[in-house]
Amino acid sequence: MVAAIRAAPSAATRAVSLLRTVQYAHPPNCPCHSNPGHHHHARPQVDRYAQHTGRRGFASPVDLSQQKEYAFEMAASSIRFGPGVTQEVGMDFKNMGAKRVCVVTDSTVRHLTATKQVEEALSREGIEFTIFDKVRVEPKDSSIKEAIDFAKPYNPDAFLAVGGGSVIDTAKLMNLYTEYPEADFLDFVNAPLGNGRPIDKKLKPLVAIPTTAGTGSETTGTAIFDLVAKKAKTGIAHRNLKPTLGIIDPLNTKTMPSAVKASSGLDVLCHSLESWTAIPYNQRVPRPTNPILRPAYQGANPISDIFSLSALRSTVKYLPRAVKDPEDFEAQSEMLLAATLAGVGFGNAGVHLCHGMSYPISGQNPGYKHAGYEVAHSIIPHGVSVAVSAPAVFRFTGPSNPERHLAAAEAFGVDISNVKCEDAGAVLADAIAAFLTDLGDQPKGLKDLGFTSEHIDALVEGTIPQARVLMLAPGLQTELEKEREQLRALFEDSMAY
Amino acid sequence: MVAAIRAAPSAATRAVSLLRTVQYAHPPNCPCHSNPGHHHHARPQVDRYAQHTGRRGFASPVDLSQQKEYAFEMAASSIRFGPGVTQEVGMDFKNMGAKRVCVVTDSTVRHLTATKQVEEALSREGIEFTIFDKVRVEPKDSSIKEAIDFAKPYNPDAFLAVGGGSVIDTAKLMNLYTEYPEADFLDFVNAPLGNGRPIDKKLKPLVAIPTTAGTGSETTGTAIFDLVAKKAKTGIAHRNLKPTLGIIDPLNTKTMPSAVKASSGLDVLCHSLESWTAIPYNQRVPRPTNPILRPAYQGANPISDIFSLSALRSTVKYLPRAVKDPEDFEAQSEMLLAATLAGVGFGNAGVHLCHGMSYPISGQNPGYKHAGYEVAHSIIPHGVSVAVSAPAVFRFTGPSNPERHLAAAEAFGVDISNVKCEDAGAVLADAIAAFLTDLGDQPKGLKDLGFTSEHIDALVEGTIPQARVLMLAPGLQTELEKEREQLRALFEDSMAY
Repeated sequence: MVAAIRAAPSAATRAVSLLRTVQYAHPPNCPCHSNPGHHHHARPQVDRYAQHTGRRGFASPVDLSQQKEYAFEMAASSIRFGPGVTQEVGMDFKNMGAKRVCVVTDSTVRHLTATKQVEEALSREGIEFTIFDKVRVEPKDSSIKEAIDFAKPYNPDAFLAVGGGSVIDTAKLMNLYTEYPEADFLDFVNAPLGNGRPIDKKLKPLVAIPTTAGTGSETTGTAIFDLVAKKAKTGIAHRNLKPTLGIIDPLNTKTMPSAVKASSGLDVLCHSLESWTAIPYNQRVPRPTNPILRPAYQGANPISDIFSLSALRSTVKYLPRAVKDPEDFEAQSEMLLAATLAGVGFGNAGVHLCHGMSYPISGQNPGYKHAGYEVAHSIIPHGVSVAVSAPAVFRFTGPSNPERHLAAAEAFGVDISNVKCEDAGAVLADAIAAFLTDLGDQPKGLKDLGFTSEHIDALVEGTIPQARVLMLAPGLQTELEKEREQLRALFEDSMAY
Repeated sequence: MVAAIRAAPSAATRAVSLLRTVQYAHPPNCPCHSNPGHHHHARPQVDRYAQHTGRRGFASPVDLSQQKEYAFEMAASSIRFGPGVTQEVGMDFKNMGAKRVCVVTDSTVRHLTATKQVEEALSREGIEFTIFDKVRVEPKDSSIKEAIDFAKPYNPDAFLAVGGGSVIDTAKLMNLYTEYPEADFLDFVNAPLGNGRPIDKKLKPLVAIPTTAGTGSETTGTAIFDLVAKKAKTGIAHRNLKPTLGIIDPLNTKTMPSAVKASSGLDVLCHSLESWTAIPYNQRVPRPTNPILRPAYQGANPISDIFSLSALRSTVKYLPRAVKDPEDFEAQSEMLLAATLAGVGFGNAGVHLCHGMSYPISGQNPGYKHAGYEVAHSIIPHGVSVAVSAPAVFRFTGPSNPERHLAAAEAFGVDISNVKCEDAGAVLADAIAAFLTDLGDQPKGLKDLGFTSEHIDALVEGTIPQARVLMLAPGLQTELEKEREQLRALFEDSMAY
């Protein structure tokens, strides 16, 4: 049987080869790139190991702000997955010696089984707790300050978040600011809106129990909110903000309405697509002068890639099933796991244009109310605001790395064997558009949300401050006027797909 | 272009489909399994979600010792990768507020550049440190106790391990026993040799800098040593033992001799193959009564799978290059990353027969001295002792999950399109044997190490106590006499390949 070995590579091997060609050690080898050093990204590609010469950088007076990054760091919360695991959380707090837990949730999740399970689990172990259930969905700085004001006098020795991304993000910031009681709120907020101060203390234990399959916040060091005075969505991002443990219990997402399943699943889709296509970590500038300054959103790297591509494939396979059949528990479970995997992926690589553009889209909503959301006010759910620009975004980013875009298109089931490299972005864009259409109940562009060309200036200006994610967008110019022009074109192209 | 979408799946998509068929949500669907419930493992397969009914287990008096596991937990050290990152370690300790660091290494690594870099990095930040360089390669309980006795009076507030698996494992136990100064050494040692006490305190920060590409110890909560009185290789394994941060610097493995590259790479190969083929987590018995009792070696799960398969593919691709060309820095770097990825995989899934059988193989060495190891005494390097049984092991485990064995064979480049399921184990065995032969300088079975059939009884008896890994071996009987018989057959089959 030895004769069979090392025969022509079969399907999986060829797939692995494809994955390898899009990694860092080699320049792109798309057939259309006869020059292997050719790269569409604005910043020139350098050899991964040419960085050696920079290793004396820390001791010698080299200007690191001009040097490219040479390392990446992967950090993730511990993850426990299983149907029913919510019940273990009381033992977890007991095991870590916590005696006084601040439970964080919102007024809806407060009454769901997940919260009841949590209360029972804590009570069973005799752990004192209080519940803060005033988290605002899509938090503002004011709602977060209210939450912090609740936590400070209670002085908990651990936090437990039960809910979606808004809840988990709010709990992270309650934990942060009770540990830094004297800090100004803007101190830790991402630059340029805030001061971007790194978190140099170890925070209290935070356990996160997601009740939606989308945010991935249970594994990341990121918290997002509206900074009202600046009219911008921004956040705080640092590895030390990440939960100690994410308890991923698929029984907790059974109650998600179908529309919420769809929009949160689209967030997963974009997390995986954006982190997979973000600029490589070793193209990022500057090289940090201290490892604590290395951003979590550091660009694509060999470990985030594994998570992002795996999450993308799961989402393509399971999201339509999860949305269409409320009884399909397998699909729901796989989507919850995919959300977490995507969280590890983008949590260590970052997102870029879909997310950067989504904040003004949802913030400047002309009055759209998404079907299936039973709220009194107009709403563009986060996942919808992210996905609506995806066809335009990946058509734009395609030339930066055609192989990665083709690999993503292939994950959607596209036969890429005869696709030309220069069509990679367009093919992926079409695949995404078809996926969104098949999913149903999705706006077919910004027009369907009520935006017209008159809104574009404001949308562009609302995107510009998202420097933290825009810096990871391949092909985006750094010169402000050129960036503005590119963003304008992207919003125009997002009007209809 | 939309017409091209959802056409016949191409290479990568088919590969993904293959990966999916071997996952948990579905029973094996190898064409030869017309009965989807058919499973060769001694323990019957159950539906993943039938576990729901067990969710009242924690509140009601159900006997959990008879219930199958329903959850898995994934934990890994933070990982920083990059050529030259060793120099950042002083800042890391400063950032975490450490003032007094115990550096752990061995007498060889003590004089390598890695240690010099570490000393400079700590000095640059004004951090006080002492160096313990008496780690024994292949540590014994006595050498570990000596290390602990060194650490206790120094009373460090953090540890830094620089070296291979022996160094990192020793540092983990120095950290553990300085935190539990009154504990008996056997308290935490794996049952049945020790008392298997869980680690319920948070240990001091431990940063691990590997100088070999093999062990993966920088990411795991496992420490292995010889328990001399019991004549057995055993260890201590708990998530809380894992390093805080693994600093993965490919400049540190440049000095590895070619023979060390080969044998440590074979350890990576077996970590990935064993964790990929270990019994699924939801087949493990008993379900733990407290999450702190959930073993790190919990069986294969959807997250460990991603790491294990990725590490396997990298090893097949890069190990031969790394061994044959000392100047191939790319291959060396990729192997170091693969070792870490495999560490995350087996650290959260476990290993089984190759590792279980390797301990008596190296411990009962009849006098073999591996080529390229410049030592005075006889030595079977760990990786060699692990890989020598691999063809026999995977021929044996093949029937437990033919799809996984075929996927592994495909990772070796075998064309599996016409392989019958019943040949899956044999095909993988042949692929491994050919890989080992091509690598060069490897024993072609136990005979080449000097073992004869007269040694088999002792080898079997030396394997039996490895309950922690044997419990993860698919197809191995739990009844002692049957297990003995199977192990005897495995050692016989390992005599020559």
